[in-house]
Amino acid sequence: MLHQFELNPESDTPLYRQLHDAIKKRIVSGRLLRGERLPANRELAGQLGLNRTTIAAAYELLESEGLIKCQVGRGTFVEGPGEAQAPAPEESMISFSASRPPEDRFPLEEFRATVHEVIDSPEAPAILQLGSAAGYAPLRRWLLNEVRKRGAAGPDDDILITSGCQQALDLIQRVLASHGETVLIEDPVAPGVRNVFQRGGVRVAGVPVGEDGVEMEALERTLEKERARLLLLTPNFQNPTGTSIPEFERMRVLELARQAGVTVIENDLYGPLRYAGPETPSIKELDRAGETILLGSFSKIAFPGLRVGWAIGPRALIARLTEAKETSDLHSDQLSQAVLLRFAESGRLAEHHRNAIAAGRERLAACVEACARELPAGSGFTRPSGGMNVWVTLPEPLDASELAERAVREGVSFLPGRYFAVTRPQTQSLRLSFAGVDPRAIARGMKILGTIFRAEQERARRGYRIEPSPALV
Amino acid sequence: MLHQFELNPESDTPLYRQLHDAIKKRIVSGRLLRGERLPANRELAGQLGLNRTTIAAAYELLESEGLIKCQVGRGTFVEGPGEAQAPAPEESMISFSASRPPEDRFPLEEFRATVHEVIDSPEAPAILQLGSAAGYAPLRRWLLNEVRKRGAAGPDDDILITSGCQQALDLIQRVLASHGETVLIEDPVAPGVRNVFQRGGVRVAGVPVGEDGVEMEALERTLEKERARLLLLTPNFQNPTGTSIPEFERMRVLELARQAGVTVIENDLYGPLRYAGPETPSIKELDRAGETILLGSFSKIAFPGLRVGWAIGPRALIARLTEAKETSDLHSDQLSQAVLLRFAESGRLAEHHRNAIAAGRERLAACVEACARELPAGSGFTRPSGGMNVWVTLPEPLDASELAERAVREGVSFLPGRYFAVTRPQTQSLRLSFAGVDPRAIARGMKILGTIFRAEQERARRGYRIEPSPALV
Repeated sequence: MLHQFELNPESDTPLYRQLHDAIKKRIVSGRLLRGERLPANRELAGQLGLNRTTIAAAYELLESEGLIKCQVGRGTFVEGPGEAQAPAPEESMISFSASRPPEDRFPLEEFRATVHEVIDSPEAPAILQLGSAAGYAPLRRWLLNEVRKRGAAGPDDDILITSGCQQALDLIQRVLASHGETVLIEDPVAPGVRNVFQRGGVRVAGVPVGEDGVEMEALERTLEKERARLLLLTPNFQNPTGTSIPEFERMRVLELARQAGVTVIENDLYGPLRYAGPETPSIKELDRAGETILLGSFSKIAFPGLRVGWAIGPRALIARLTEAKETSDLHSDQLSQAVLLRFAESGRLAEHHRNAIAAGRERLAACVEACARELPAGSGFTRPSGGMNVWVTLPEPLDASELAERAVREGVSFLPGRYFAVTRPQTQSLRLSFAGVDPRAIARGMKILGTIFRAEQERARRGYRIEPSPALV
Repeated sequence: MLHQFELNPESDTPLYRQLHDAIKKRIVSGRLLRGERLPANRELAGQLGLNRTTIAAAYELLESEGLIKCQVGRGTFVEGPGEAQAPAPEESMISFSASRPPEDRFPLEEFRATVHEVIDSPEAPAILQLGSAAGYAPLRRWLLNEVRKRGAAGPDDDILITSGCQQALDLIQRVLASHGETVLIEDPVAPGVRNVFQRGGVRVAGVPVGEDGVEMEALERTLEKERARLLLLTPNFQNPTGTSIPEFERMRVLELARQAGVTVIENDLYGPLRYAGPETPSIKELDRAGETILLGSFSKIAFPGLRVGWAIGPRALIARLTEAKETSDLHSDQLSQAVLLRFAESGRLAEHHRNAIAAGRERLAACVEACARELPAGSGFTRPSGGMNVWVTLPEPLDASELAERAVREGVSFLPGRYFAVTRPQTQSLRLSFAGVDPRAIARGMKILGTIFRAEQERARRGYRIEPSPALV
């Protein structure tokens, strides 16, 4: 119960912060579950002998983190942890929930040195002044040059700097896919991709993802059936499945898209995180007609809190996206653009990238081995060559959403497949985001999940239902 | 002619950069005018004896700055300088074009100290990690607290951090004003305000701005005539006119809006830049019903290149804006949020703010005095108590757009009224953005403008037309 918190009025940490930390710990550890009601300010203040403003400050902070939510006329309820707000793994918690780089491996010293160089440079005043909608010119040149060296941008291509990949999708929706039009996306897919089109009133049609990215026959059928405007694909280490489209099928995608008059948007957010196998040419690289739009970002290979991504495509189209960008938010943050450019130009990004690949390779191997060892008979899982995610499909009648609630009470979290569903319900599937978890914790966490999954399988076999969550408040 | 450039191959500055600087100087100084054609790469390479890739790199950089533009099948043409790309005043040029703080007065040492503190703090890893759509929690608390101290936010208000004020407007359009609905805006108005609604398919109806902000009778008539959804106002030092709505009329605005069932969006971007007179309560502060949405930003009082603004309004509404924000770009850049918070909390923002007000006051006085002294008889101009802009209306038959082209050739730039027009054409009006120009340059620039304006008036009286621009290339 909440009134059992031990708060220390003598501590240097303010009381509201202690209360916040204590409640957050219970939410993250699953002792307080989504949907549970928290006591009202006045009530909890009485129980704890604290001022109501202290409770209010703690609740406000929890709400700002997306962990609790006020529902008008009903009260305050546990909300998170969700995708964006999923907390970093705490000592007591093993989190497979967040597809993002581990913050305990951020190269802080190198980052500090980079920022110092940028703000001590004579460019500093210009960086702090209003900039160009297209992005910080030296960064645009550097990125375009890198992509040209790979052969993925031609003389007719241009670049727009966006506030992360999500904004590139948002601008593409606004410029290229009007209300009522249809866009083909992968099924399952990252929810941000699905949401951005649905919010814009665009119809999304899901193309099933198999072992090798989108299934070609399904893609062909869907392109025939739907008058689609765009086809959005993640050919490398797709989120959530971790699968990749083989090279010869990338050619086929281009052929099919051309026949159907559909523009391909290639999301290469995870592409730089390859741990095994040869580089596969991007669709943009294979596209002789030069019509594909390639999306990239620093979020997965550097610092997600610095919102810098990009879109590369035909000049006229990038000009239209740039106009939309200017109306949306004038331009992306220039300090972060300049810092990331310096981080890259100084060679620090390449070094960090090598470290991230070494760590990711080890973690992926640990995850796949643990899946083979711990998952119950009849389970399937993907074996990615890179990225941050493994996709698990459990045997009937296991329900990943129910299991997720149970797992969090045992100290392990993951996101159930339902979260990524477009058309197919994905009831038995789940995503394991391994990049933020060290190999030992992966082994430990998977052992716990294996035990829970097998126990539940056993119970189902005997006709029992999963035990209900105990009431905690 | 372009082949008269003197480039120095021995210099440390690369040739492409020297070429860029030389062309840019001619565009900024008006020796190359908007719409003029630049020689093709090959042609200029031949004339200058340079490699074609050098020309290409210089052109690319100029294009990324919005100064030139390639038109498919036609060639390369001079484009800028426009609003966002308007360059800082160069030695040879006096620019009244950009409504933004002067970069030569940025407190760079204080900024550097702030960044060092932020990235050396234990919060650094969390700042670099993915954050919350609502914004960096400590910054949200600090801002909300500041606004509460002023009485402009109540217990039912919440805050969303946006990527500058422009994004707040964009999210408001998306959440509150659907395609086909009507929004009332000021006429004249900053083009970003007009564009964001027009892009979203929203009808904008202009309410004329007089000496004291929007004209109340016109507002009343327009509210009666239009079934508007939103009323967007800038009660303090409106851009472009510099005018403010008096306190008793702010009450009247609220009454009229309530009667018409219209939500007021209060853009207070310039509010903190008051140089004279007592503080006037904001509409949000006067609004007992608590329905007004208040917009603010660090752009005008700190560093525009760091994209951090905010929207404060009823909790349920901010929740909807926050959802739209998450779909748009996940969240705003966290490094800049943390840096601006530290800049504020450390007292450095307050100190810089005092300096900015002292400088602004001096520049405003210089601008108003020079207007009184230099403008031809029959001119009118506003006398703001703050902000960055004075609005000038010239006597018939002077045309501000024609005069702007002529002025740029004499080394002075401003934006003609046409640029800010909603319904009324604003042919004779122009905006003088004084904040970026020091008092002596203001006096010098206004003397030049006065001479041009009077000469043109004299010519018109004698029946001559303004002389055509000489062909330069």
